[in-house]
Amino acid sequence: MSEFDFIDRYFTQRFSGLNRKNDRVQLGIGDDAAILSWRNSNQLVVSSDLLSSGKHFFTDARPYDVGFKSLAVNLSDMAAMGAQPLAFTLSVALSESPCLSWWDGFSQGLFTIASQFNCPLIGGDTTACEHSVGPIISITIFGELPNNTSGLLRSGVKPSDDLWVSGLPGKARLGLLFEACRRGLLNRFLPVSEHAVFTHFESILPETLRQECVLALHQPQPHVTLGIELRALAHSAIDLSDGLSGDLRHMLQQSQCGAVVEQHLIDALWCNWYFGCVDFLPWLRQIFLVGGDDYTLCFSADPKWRESLLALSSRLTIPLNRIGVAQQSRLFELSDSQRREPIQLHSFDHFLS
Amino acid sequence: MSEFDFIDRYFTQRFSGLNRKNDRVQLGIGDDAAILSWRNSNQLVVSSDLLSSGKHFFTDARPYDVGFKSLAVNLSDMAAMGAQPLAFTLSVALSESPCLSWWDGFSQGLFTIASQFNCPLIGGDTTACEHSVGPIISITIFGELPNNTSGLLRSGVKPSDDLWVSGLPGKARLGLLFEACRRGLLNRFLPVSEHAVFTHFESILPETLRQECVLALHQPQPHVTLGIELRALAHSAIDLSDGLSGDLRHMLQQSQCGAVVEQHLIDALWCNWYFGCVDFLPWLRQIFLVGGDDYTLCFSADPKWRESLLALSSRLTIPLNRIGVAQQSRLFELSDSQRREPIQLHSFDHFLS
Repeated sequence: MSEFDFIDRYFTQRFSGLNRKNDRVQLGIGDDAAILSWRNSNQLVVSSDLLSSGKHFFTDARPYDVGFKSLAVNLSDMAAMGAQPLAFTLSVALSESPCLSWWDGFSQGLFTIASQFNCPLIGGDTTACEHSVGPIISITIFGELPNNTSGLLRSGVKPSDDLWVSGLPGKARLGLLFEACRRGLLNRFLPVSEHAVFTHFESILPETLRQECVLALHQPQPHVTLGIELRALAHSAIDLSDGLSGDLRHMLQQSQCGAVVEQHLIDALWCNWYFGCVDFLPWLRQIFLVGGDDYTLCFSADPKWRESLLALSSRLTIPLNRIGVAQQSRLFELSDSQRREPIQLHSFDHFLS
Repeated sequence: MSEFDFIDRYFTQRFSGLNRKNDRVQLGIGDDAAILSWRNSNQLVVSSDLLSSGKHFFTDARPYDVGFKSLAVNLSDMAAMGAQPLAFTLSVALSESPCLSWWDGFSQGLFTIASQFNCPLIGGDTTACEHSVGPIISITIFGELPNNTSGLLRSGVKPSDDLWVSGLPGKARLGLLFEACRRGLLNRFLPVSEHAVFTHFESILPETLRQECVLALHQPQPHVTLGIELRALAHSAIDLSDGLSGDLRHMLQQSQCGAVVEQHLIDALWCNWYFGCVDFLPWLRQIFLVGGDDYTLCFSADPKWRESLLALSSRLTIPLNRIGVAQQSRLFELSDSQRREPIQLHSFDHFLS
């Protein structure tokens, strides 16, 4: 199968209906470049993510999930900017003999989420790798922002802002641990000293909640609509890809301030999700902070917007919860009723892991 | 070195001056996404290219050249659309222990051509590969087109249009053969039956012209300004990446017509470049048609623009030459004074090679 046949069969054909329905696509796949029409003087928002087999997903991950998640993580970057996604390009490095059923599943997952967000595939490239590697997937996504807004930058946190999270950071990390355990790979992701508490936790968690965690890992739902609504309410936002403590620290550093995260607010999130986890809160707090692969949002907002944000939460049926406040001091701390302790950086760094 | 340090050292620092000078970059590297300001209702033009070591360049290629060429091939896609390049994103898949001097050279080459075209790097991603592979480089480039133009599409060729090429297609292929020969890899790129004619040709070619071919391979100069000017003169354009016969065939197929390429016009191009090559014309014609990696343009235009195009050629100091005419019949032929023969498809397909 030639490169052209491959692209045509798995991508051009599958996406052509979506692209025709989208009135912004003037020219899609098949020329030297794609052309999108543009409205007024809206700003162009661009983000790129690169995912590789064995690093961002298990080598035996379902191809549907890989396709779904590859675009989801890019949509999440648009969400974190408050941008409306428009379209994306996809480049894939394949082994010399690509497994065609794998690419069929991949493009189905990709198409599912692309359709959900009306975000067409408008171009890309493929190349064969010299060595036998799992697929490497490079997506660049484009969105737009009205020209009178600066978007939700990482640098906008103001001291005394409330700090909020959407969804439940850490749930995808639990999903990762469940999936790793099933494959006998738990050692790669969890110190041996924590295996007992993990095994006990897994044994008491209802199966539906276990599946919810696995789904959060494999098919994250980017909070795009939330991001757009937050333009009017939040000062700053970041999407949680590398774990809350690391990602929030980036946002605080770029905003030149610190924060106090309240332990009881984290505990309330977990208990609200599943009251039976009350005995595991010290361990779950770490999972919350280390996290990784959440693709939910962390944002800061003036305290005057608390009610508006709770109303937004119920309108969008996305959990929005306060976890603490920003502070002038550059310290980044976890507080309980007795004391404050510095939060260690436990970032989920794909590059180092 | 962490991912953040790596990006900062080789990319953010080097490009920050260029990005500050560019008034379109509202937000560059370092947030969830980049933001570009937009003028009026210009259309957005997007293209992605993926380059892998051992496939698009020799594994021992100079890193400077790899950086230079990676962006050049993307700029060439903008040229082929008649679009003004604006900015690009870069994603790289690295081995676990990247060779830092390699990335230093790479980013210098990339920065050189980015500065030449005032095309800033606004974002991207890195990932470590599970296996030991050469670097895989994914670039997505953005450009703009006035909203009253359709750009230079592949589908615009009209029967009786002149067919033109910019530069000298085949020169990069000669460069590839010289470089392959020096590495003892000629067999990979040339049938044994042609080794004698190649060796003879190399022996008679002046050293400066040999070097010109090698430079055309390693540091192609995309014809961006030409592309923009052609919006007013050409019906259709494609950039020559996979070889003239394959690329022109794509353009003809999408335009639902055929073409006659005149042998004497090809011969004139070679003789004009180096008169001493007159004894090698049958072989050089094949090199011209098979080519690959040229990153010059092939375009079609109404015959009434011949003089304007020759004037443009001398104004831009870029050779523009007619090579034939399009025809209503779907045949794609090479003609000499006696006869016409169908042109075989000898595409330089990175995917299959």
